[in-house]
Amino acid sequence: MSTDRRDHLVALRRDFHRHPEPAWKEFWTTARIVTELERIGVDDYYVGREVLADERLAVPDDAELDEWMTRARDAGADPDLLETMDGGWTGAVAVVEQGEGPTVGLRVDIDGLPREESTDESHHPASEGFRSETGAMHACGHDAHATIGLGVIEAVKESDFTGTLKVFFQPAEEVIGGGRPMAESGHLDDIGYLFALHVGLDYPTGETVAGIGDFLAVTQFYTTFTGYPGHAGARPEEGHNAVQAMATAVQNLYGIPRHSDGASRVNAGRVGGGTASNIIPEEAFVHGEVRGETTEIRDHTFERARKVFEGAAISHDCEFDIEVEGEAPSAESDEELVEFVHDASMAHPGVTQATRRGAIGGSEDATFLMQYVQDNGGFATYVGVGTDHPGGHHTATFDVDEESLGLGVDVLTDAIEAVSQAQP
Amino acid sequence: MSTDRRDHLVALRRDFHRHPEPAWKEFWTTARIVTELERIGVDDYYVGREVLADERLAVPDDAELDEWMTRARDAGADPDLLETMDGGWTGAVAVVEQGEGPTVGLRVDIDGLPREESTDESHHPASEGFRSETGAMHACGHDAHATIGLGVIEAVKESDFTGTLKVFFQPAEEVIGGGRPMAESGHLDDIGYLFALHVGLDYPTGETVAGIGDFLAVTQFYTTFTGYPGHAGARPEEGHNAVQAMATAVQNLYGIPRHSDGASRVNAGRVGGGTASNIIPEEAFVHGEVRGETTEIRDHTFERARKVFEGAAISHDCEFDIEVEGEAPSAESDEELVEFVHDASMAHPGVTQATRRGAIGGSEDATFLMQYVQDNGGFATYVGVGTDHPGGHHTATFDVDEESLGLGVDVLTDAIEAVSQAQP
Amino acid sequence: MSTDRRDHLVALRRDFHRHPEPAWKEFWTTARIVTELERIGVDDYYVGREVLADERLAVPDDAELDEWMTRARDAGADPDLLETMDGGWTGAVAVVEQGEGPTVGLRVDIDGLPREESTDESHHPASEGFRSETGAMHACGHDAHATIGLGVIEAVKESDFTGTLKVFFQPAEEVIGGGRPMAESGHLDDIGYLFALHVGLDYPTGETVAGIGDFLAVTQFYTTFTGYPGHAGARPEEGHNAVQAMATAVQNLYGIPRHSDGASRVNAGRVGGGTASNIIPEEAFVHGEVRGETTEIRDHTFERARKVFEGAAISHDCEFDIEVEGEAPSAESDEELVEFVHDASMAHPGVTQATRRGAIGGSEDATFLMQYVQDNGGFATYVGVGTDHPGGHHTATFDVDEESLGLGVDVLTDAIEAVSQAQP
Amino acid sequence: MSTDRRDHLVALRRDFHRHPEPAWKEFWTTARIVTELERIGVDDYYVGREVLADERLAVPDDAELDEWMTRARDAGADPDLLETMDGGWTGAVAVVEQGEGPTVGLRVDIDGLPREESTDESHHPASEGFRSETGAMHACGHDAHATIGLGVIEAVKESDFTGTLKVFFQPAEEVIGGGRPMAESGHLDDIGYLFALHVGLDYPTGETVAGIGDFLAVTQFYTTFTGYPGHAGARPEEGHNAVQAMATAVQNLYGIPRHSDGASRVNAGRVGGGTASNIIPEEAFVHGEVRGETTEIRDHTFERARKVFEGAAISHDCEFDIEVEGEAPSAESDEELVEFVHDASMAHPGVTQATRRGAIGGSEDATFLMQYVQDNGGFATYVGVGTDHPGGHHTATFDVDEESLGLGVDVLTDAIEAVSQAQP
Repeated sequence: MSTDRRDHLVALRRDFHRHPEPAWKEFWTTARIVTELERIGVDDYYVGREVLADERLAVPDDAELDEWMTRARDAGADPDLLETMDGGWTGAVAVVEQGEGPTVGLRVDIDGLPREESTDESHHPASEGFRSETGAMHACGHDAHATIGLGVIEAVKESDFTGTLKVFFQPAEEVIGGGRPMAESGHLDDIGYLFALHVGLDYPTGETVAGIGDFLAVTQFYTTFTGYPGHAGARPEEGHNAVQAMATAVQNLYGIPRHSDGASRVNAGRVGGGTASNIIPEEAFVHGEVRGETTEIRDHTFERARKVFEGAAISHDCEFDIEVEGEAPSAESDEELVEFVHDASMAHPGVTQATRRGAIGGSEDATFLMQYVQDNGGFATYVGVGTDHPGGHHTATFDVDEESLGLGVDVLTDAIEAVSQAQP
Repeated sequence: MSTDRRDHLVALRRDFHRHPEPAWKEFWTTARIVTELERIGVDDYYVGREVLADERLAVPDDAELDEWMTRARDAGADPDLLETMDGGWTGAVAVVEQGEGPTVGLRVDIDGLPREESTDESHHPASEGFRSETGAMHACGHDAHATIGLGVIEAVKESDFTGTLKVFFQPAEEVIGGGRPMAESGHLDDIGYLFALHVGLDYPTGETVAGIGDFLAVTQFYTTFTGYPGHAGARPEEGHNAVQAMATAVQNLYGIPRHSDGASRVNAGRVGGGTASNIIPEEAFVHGEVRGETTEIRDHTFERARKVFEGAAISHDCEFDIEVEGEAPSAESDEELVEFVHDASMAHPGVTQATRRGAIGGSEDATFLMQYVQDNGGFATYVGVGTDHPGGHHTATFDVDEESLGLGVDVLTDAIEAVSQAQP
Repeated sequence: MSTDRRDHLVALRRDFHRHPEPAWKEFWTTARIVTELERIGVDDYYVGREVLADERLAVPDDAELDEWMTRARDAGADPDLLETMDGGWTGAVAVVEQGEGPTVGLRVDIDGLPREESTDESHHPASEGFRSETGAMHACGHDAHATIGLGVIEAVKESDFTGTLKVFFQPAEEVIGGGRPMAESGHLDDIGYLFALHVGLDYPTGETVAGIGDFLAVTQFYTTFTGYPGHAGARPEEGHNAVQAMATAVQNLYGIPRHSDGASRVNAGRVGGGTASNIIPEEAFVHGEVRGETTEIRDHTFERARKVFEGAAISHDCEFDIEVEGEAPSAESDEELVEFVHDASMAHPGVTQATRRGAIGGSEDATFLMQYVQDNGGFATYVGVGTDHPGGHHTATFDVDEESLGLGVDVLTDAIEAVSQAQP
Repeated sequence: MSTDRRDHLVALRRDFHRHPEPAWKEFWTTARIVTELERIGVDDYYVGREVLADERLAVPDDAELDEWMTRARDAGADPDLLETMDGGWTGAVAVVEQGEGPTVGLRVDIDGLPREESTDESHHPASEGFRSETGAMHACGHDAHATIGLGVIEAVKESDFTGTLKVFFQPAEEVIGGGRPMAESGHLDDIGYLFALHVGLDYPTGETVAGIGDFLAVTQFYTTFTGYPGHAGARPEEGHNAVQAMATAVQNLYGIPRHSDGASRVNAGRVGGGTASNIIPEEAFVHGEVRGETTEIRDHTFERARKVFEGAAISHDCEFDIEVEGEAPSAESDEELVEFVHDASMAHPGVTQATRRGAIGGSEDATFLMQYVQDNGGFATYVGVGTDHPGGHHTATFDVDEESLGLGVDVLTDAIEAVSQAQP
């Protein structure tokens, strides 16, 4: 890859990094992707409602969407394009038809996380001046994913690939919200081969993993407790304390037993309750998730969680409500595609370690797309592109080594090209 | 009071102190009371089944009763008398008829507590050689109560009292079990005036309180959780963990809100669960109590406790069962009798501080007897006889100042005598 | 009182009710008070920094203050006056000099609560169109307090009162933040008699309480836990979970033992933590309070709370920090002033029940002002003016019966007048 | 195997089943083993102190040992032999020298569990009259282990085996107490090949597993909390509540995070505290364990547990103490021996399913013996012998299918014989 091309990828990534937008609010991001597609010369692309089935989970309320829409407009995104995304219909699909051949997909996710970014001088984006300007943060490398997705399009166009390439710029991965509606949008119906991508995952720059598997099945939930208020000094006995119910639930959620059939996970990742120090709290919530190495383990754990919430509510004479916000199944990578990625990696001079198989230890709604393709008789693999990252994923000091951008583009492009050339 | 008489009271108290027997197991104690009654020349007395209504709460199982029965026999109690107490029918009522006049009652309780006594040299019973020989302990002064009850009988017999005196040696106060069946035994039906007695209560030697009130209403309960076991290593997910349910309940019991109408109390005084470190616990229990400054507060708190138990059980998919073990109402002392005790106190040279009214801050099933008499149109008061006690009530170093034994006998005898003389 | 005057009070109260502003953000409210003072013809008044000592607790951050300042400006408050309140320096003191005589104070508080108001048709402010427009709510009657304070000024000016009247429009009562700095402002140094006021408190319209006492001493705190984040799926073991620490603290805070010396209170009124469902929470907080019937009980309870926080932090390997936000002592009403209020009540045709003494069962930082005056040799009383209120204090359906506005003005004016006439 | 021999094994197993003795109290059991050894004609055996290194964990106190010693004597065990076991020195090693050849070991554990056995008629031992007579229960099949160990000796003596066979009748497996001292006793120094045995483990009758692995490393602990008592009614604030500390610890122990490197386990298997419902509890304990798929995971989890205990103690102003009671490492089975067992299984007509490898999902202190042999250059395997068991391991209705006794003896004998014949 040329130095110019590399520099362009870095600039593009920093542009995305400066404008992280959490799930369903990727207005500026989607618009920036479209701008780049047009620069590359791709005019067959679809945006928002065109790339998502109707049913979506975990969509923020209108006020919040409007706030981010305004922010995207103020940051220079095309107002007409933004209008098509009204209601949080973000994301895009780019199509490159290049002669006869297989239809190959590449899925990259594009959302940021609702957390502050480090201001520490040792944090590269802070010292180099491309730290987040939105209050959110690209703390999981999706800025690099969007960049690599665009880079692959440009590189494939210049390669010997024959067939059709579709790149799926998927929104709302972090809330496990975008995978399912994109999988069911119709755009995947003709995909024979699907690559998905993640950078980092504790693999250093120079290492690739051709097929990641063992994704944990996950269910995200939002549980509310409703009690009855009371003056904490004058009438404590009148209160039905929703915060006590929530605290009881948190204690017992984490205490759900481990499962002997495999890994399970529980997290009460965001909680809150009450309005003032002197009022017995009337409302509280737990925004959390359970995971399992298999769907059965996850479901067993979630059934336990339901009991925990019910019991906690009864203990403090509160009502409760559990809303499932997002779900993703497990998935495995197919050997057929692992082979192509592994070969492309072995052939690349920048790859110092080409690993065939890895486990992510986490969850991903790419699994919806992978499953959809596999159910149709196609093949899918989830590719890891190593990158030195100082802080862990989702922490304030996460960053990617920009060296890995070009490497990711190269390996994926070569694998995609190889797929087309392997056809009889 | 003569020195001989005082020495006798001290010896008697030490005898009781050496043989503490918890609720419904006062076999040796009852037998010792009978022996003393016979020494004094009282032959109109009733024991066990004769002094208790049929329905009793918190009676230990047969194995435990047998064990203590055997111990009492081994310690020299009259086997024939013991036989009448089979089944835990302990306690006695002594009757002294002494001419025309009112029927006056004195209630003293006689049970010990299931706790170890201090072996510290600074603990008087340890250094003087009359420490408990049973594993239980007179940690609440009921040894002094039994002693004073007997001392009053002897003193009244020598006084100008005319009428009938009944002394109620009540068992099972500590489990709030003996008050109700003794109140309903029929022996109180003709009582016009009832005195109840407690030593200590943080009042020093030389101080008396003529009328203690503000007893907290109390409910004692025994709750069991039943889950399902599982091997902690191989099948943790199979367990329905009764110990987690119990811990959840304990946390939330103590978290039941305070009440703005007055004092409330909660205690999970004895808990347990499980069988081995590597089995998910199938069984657990909470032996506890709630109290309230009024019966309403207690009932409100107990209703909350029921919710807590229900919720804790559901949280861990366990069954639960709540058994009410004992209950006692609130009660107040009547001014009519307070007067007599106060006058007797003022007249006694050993009394350095005569207080009219006090609050106990605790519960007592003497309230059943007091209420019974008051409901019949009679009067009742609960008298405090101060005694220096190094450790708090119910602790391992509780002890009474034996100086207060004679003083208690004197004041009560004088008050009882005054009652009879005040009759028209 | 004339019908016009009554109608004016009602209109004024509804104006305040429409614009509730929580502690230190009473910008519009203070400006409205000033406007009314000028209408009445009082030009000797002081605002903001002039009525508060330098040290204040629980002041919101600048962003929040600015937001409410802007809202006040948008709602029509005088921009110049608002500017003097920059930094949250709210509240006012009005002075009416009317010849020779005692200096009498009346303290009313003016802040709203950070809670939503009911939209139910049965809720009078909703159906009558004066529901809150700010998102906060006058759920404790401070709208009525401000109104009565202004009404008393107008009525006193027309009465036979001779002396000086100062009315203290105190901010930030709900966070126990305004009482101390206003007490120490210098404006109370010459007060010989201080009246404080509260409507409602479960007393119906037509009932007054001449002297409320038994205020609970209170300490409000803000505790933060700081742990370490981790990906909930991939690296749960790396997290030091601040939400678990917080939940542990909540469970044990409410479990702090009751105190036998008198009432105690604990509340974790507002809590929160974490950022996303799939991140092990790094931060959490508890905004709460403890109270005691005496300062000793409160301090004992707070010491326990410190232990609870420390232990909770250690259990989950987190750091913690406790910030004391507000404190108020206990206080009692002086018989000297109780007398005047009781007499005024007895003489008023609208008063159907004149009670001499009551207990509030809550806390109040009026106690700082009362104590200040009492320490200077003056007298203080806390007056209750009954009002039918459908919902409890601090709930979404709290409302005052506007009939009580005029009655409150009358009784207080009469009592103030009587004070001046009783001087030799 | 002859019918007589089978009947003998069944009778022997029922004898053991009737007399279950928990860890370090296997007095009757050891004596019964010796009687059988003598019947078989083995006179080279070692007992108690002769088969254990000095340092032992989790030994009960003298009173408890004496009680079980007496019970063993009353049940007919040889008093002289019992005397050598004084202090809980139980267990035995039998040695059969049979010409030149390898030294082969077989380890069987012999202790029962401290739990009640079912009395249900559907429970075979209950309906057939060999239910436990001791109050404990053979709920994990160690009665079958001891029986098979003895059966193998008799069968090996009649086989073509040449070499030395040592059978290790290990005590105290359930508390992970006996494995280490037996491993370090010197008797394993010359073992070249070690078989360990477990029946059941959810494998049905007819199935064998030649090499079980993936044992979880385990640490068992006994934690005590010491607070300060108080009268629950009169002085609740004086108490430092050890039961609240324990409940807090239980809640947070189970809440220790899962580990992404592999399985972990936590159990508070037996807990208790307090003495009476009306005393604030002064003492409480947690008898529990942590496990990990690796030693590192276990140690990480245990470090978290220490924090949990420390924090819980501080929260309630209690002291705490953690005693490690038992520990066992992980272990794997060696392919060299797996081969022999698998071949013997395949050749046996009663084996319907011969599995090569399995995972136990639990812990075992056989791992100490396996590691010891492996560290000396020898080989070890842990063999599973299936048996239909109606209830799960450690539950009240656990039972073994006696058909599997003979099968176990056959397969192990054949494998042992094959080892000797495979020597050059």
